[in-house]
Amino acid sequence: MYGLIGRMTAVTGQREALIGILLHAVSGLPGCLSYIIARDPSNDDSVWITEVWLDSLSHQAALSLPAVKQALEQGRPLIASMDSHMITEPVGGHGLFEPKC
Amino acid sequence: MYGLIGRMTAVTGQREALIGILLHAVSGLPGCLSYIIARDPSNDDSVWITEVWLDSLSHQAALSLPAVKQALEQGRPLIASMDSHMITEPVGGHGLFEPKC
Repeated sequence: MYGLIGRMTAVTGQREALIGILLHAVSGLPGCLSYIIARDPSNDDSVWITEVWLDSLSHQAALSLPAVKQALEQGRPLIASMDSHMITEPVGGHGLFEPKC
Repeated sequence: MYGLIGRMTAVTGQREALIGILLHAVSGLPGCLSYIIARDPSNDDSVWITEVWLDSLSHQAALSLPAVKQALEQGRPLIASMDSHMITEPVGGHGLFEPKC
């Protein structure tokens, strides 16, 4: 499996709008086993995103889906910075399943 | 919801043993919506753990469950360091559900 842990900071006051765009885009993505969006309680503008994909290919393929492309276009102006970006190798746990497409 | 993102480093050569203990302990934990264990590809001894709980109370309560207590006891000698520990406020996404107890 292929995983990502990232933190981004929204333009001041735009975190909830950015979260809304992300939530809308993440349902039913082929190969996506987990995609969780979270506020960072230590910074009013920051968002944590943790992702697990079957493999990096499914992650890559998702980036060209219309719904994801649209979300990226809508979201980009609301993002002030991409703060941290870690690649992981998930091995298991609870809450990993492919969406019914 | 209450979330945690943490990275720990195992005693050299003990990462897989530590992962095995964690995987064994995380199934069927009341209030646990997601618990994902991942290797850190940038360090042969490090593990990322991302967690989502209904609330901090359910996380706290889980720490006193026999299976979790046993895992902590087994795992502690295999942990060289707790490197990072972020608290998050998950808002949604894909892969969040309570286990059938």
